[in-house]
Amino acid sequence: MLWNRRDFAKLGAIGLAARYTPIISAQTPAKKTGYAVVGLGRIASHFMPGARMTTNSQITGLVSGHPDKAQRLAAEYGIAKESIYNYENFDEIAKNPAIDAVYVALPNSMHAEYTIRAAKAGKHVLCEKPMATNVADAEAMIAACKAANVKLMIAYRCHYEPTHLKAVKIIRDGLLGNVQSIQSSFGFNIAPGEWRINKKLAGGGPLFDVGIYSLNACRYLTGEEPEHISAYASVIDHDGRFNDVEENVSWTMRFPSGVVASCNTTYGAQMDGFFRVYGSKGWLDVNPAFNYDGLRLTGNFSGTKIDEPSTAKDPSHFQAQAEHFSHCLQNGLEPKSPGEEGLRDMRHITEIYRSAGIKI
Amino acid sequence: MLWNRRDFAKLGAIGLAARYTPIISAQTPAKKTGYAVVGLGRIASHFMPGARMTTNSQITGLVSGHPDKAQRLAAEYGIAKESIYNYENFDEIAKNPAIDAVYVALPNSMHAEYTIRAAKAGKHVLCEKPMATNVADAEAMIAACKAANVKLMIAYRCHYEPTHLKAVKIIRDGLLGNVQSIQSSFGFNIAPGEWRINKKLAGGGPLFDVGIYSLNACRYLTGEEPEHISAYASVIDHDGRFNDVEENVSWTMRFPSGVVASCNTTYGAQMDGFFRVYGSKGWLDVNPAFNYDGLRLTGNFSGTKIDEPSTAKDPSHFQAQAEHFSHCLQNGLEPKSPGEEGLRDMRHITEIYRSAGIKI
Repeated sequence: MLWNRRDFAKLGAIGLAARYTPIISAQTPAKKTGYAVVGLGRIASHFMPGARMTTNSQITGLVSGHPDKAQRLAAEYGIAKESIYNYENFDEIAKNPAIDAVYVALPNSMHAEYTIRAAKAGKHVLCEKPMATNVADAEAMIAACKAANVKLMIAYRCHYEPTHLKAVKIIRDGLLGNVQSIQSSFGFNIAPGEWRINKKLAGGGPLFDVGIYSLNACRYLTGEEPEHISAYASVIDHDGRFNDVEENVSWTMRFPSGVVASCNTTYGAQMDGFFRVYGSKGWLDVNPAFNYDGLRLTGNFSGTKIDEPSTAKDPSHFQAQAEHFSHCLQNGLEPKSPGEEGLRDMRHITEIYRSAGIKI
Repeated sequence: MLWNRRDFAKLGAIGLAARYTPIISAQTPAKKTGYAVVGLGRIASHFMPGARMTTNSQITGLVSGHPDKAQRLAAEYGIAKESIYNYENFDEIAKNPAIDAVYVALPNSMHAEYTIRAAKAGKHVLCEKPMATNVADAEAMIAACKAANVKLMIAYRCHYEPTHLKAVKIIRDGLLGNVQSIQSSFGFNIAPGEWRINKKLAGGGPLFDVGIYSLNACRYLTGEEPEHISAYASVIDHDGRFNDVEENVSWTMRFPSGVVASCNTTYGAQMDGFFRVYGSKGWLDVNPAFNYDGLRLTGNFSGTKIDEPSTAKDPSHFQAQAEHFSHCLQNGLEPKSPGEEGLRDMRHITEIYRSAGIKI
């Protein structure tokens, strides 16, 4: 039997998947959640159209060091001129009732500062991954949001993406039997000059940027925290790109149930993101897994073969996560990927770097 | 441009691949090398028809504890009744001029004893992998063969298989650029009662049996020895199969060039053997890689896409390795995978187990 979407929807209705699925309110919300986008780079260019596609979110403010870019986007999104800020007057968002939340899409090392400043301005925070570049900053971000009584969500878009949710559900439903082993990788060949290879901005190399997808996937696939981690890192291309950060990291993890996982990340090769899970009753694979679209789930388990390419198009992942956070804000719910989820990854990343002998 | 076999042959003629390819003598050898097969289990049932397909090898003796089975196979292969031995009278092969070499296809822990006894009987040895179950035995096997002036080859069939050879050649020719990272896995869901889960016979679990393929592949793909290894092992299925040996092992290696590799093996899940190599100019994949046939090489590197399913059928791998060893014996050459190659894997396997906290 081949599985189809209807089968999954049916299982979802009766099964465990419910808790992994954003609950969409049956009623149209009275007022859309207004987001100020902080940092108008590549990821913001996916989030903004994604948020526009939701029923419950809108872009109501921009924070940028580039006034021209901000004005162009403000015109495109119908954002009031007074809702354009820069990094100096950012804190004035406190006085802007059109802004309910900020979406922090800055280089990694700036996540903590702008999350904390947003919290102090009384705004909820949707912060990109990696949450921060060290555990102390991550803890300070959580504390600041608690103190200000605002919600903090980390933008783990795969937590809200149907292919990943289905993979998790297949595992939770026992269709793979006892999971034994997981493989996952994600990396790319980075261009010179990117902020991602500047340690002051990025905090580290591919592990912070893309390896985190594999780490996070191993955690939601197992539903466990790794209790042992060992890692190696290296720089092979001495071409000026890796003076600051590592080029490669490979690491192995052991989870409390005995599941072992091995992951790779790189800035030195095209490494399509994927994960593969091996269980006593079969395997499943999501490949590609971490792209913005074109995901494909295949598997052979419990006597069932599946091959399900996702037809969703970018920016659907960004739409789903904005929809979820806005829904939480409008209904007083905790997001599925709160600051604490980001903090757990930060702790594991710290351990991976420690094991690999890299000081972050 | 898609690569085809002619392109590869052309490159092979001018390039580095030559040293990975068995040299086939233009002349028919005067006398075929005669092998006594020691242990008539599963792997022998591939080796025997494989050797029969060669131009330079034949099966001339059998060593078994099962006289009925031995007599049936002797009839099938035209082996003289006097060339059937058991484990008690094994040493009498010394007096049999039809037997030039033995093929040791016994459970792992018996490899050392029968290799050493064969050497003392003046016979060359083709020994299955893993060479032994500990470093001391592997060293003793090499020493015994040296002392007896006989040759020792470890049956690493992938060293003689065209798809693996082509993958190595692509890397050596620089078509992947600088290799950054390798992934490899191999495992299966083992049936209860197999000798492979009896530590006294197997020495250990899936690492000795199938994980060794991934370890060995990482070594021939890089042409380097791992200088750092870390590993985790686990038993998840407490169903009586894993009282003696591990169920899962995942390990990470760092090679001197900086290449990092992560590997997985299991006896608790179907885990098709594969490897994938990521370089600065692209990637290549052999999947399946370690089956007896049906191998498939795909890749996208240096602007070239390849997709090359192997049409060779089992027992072609066994044919190629018998052909190689017989050629070496007939021409006084060292085999490409001598005892020292097996010893290197034994040392790395010992380190993997040590790191995983398993005493072997």
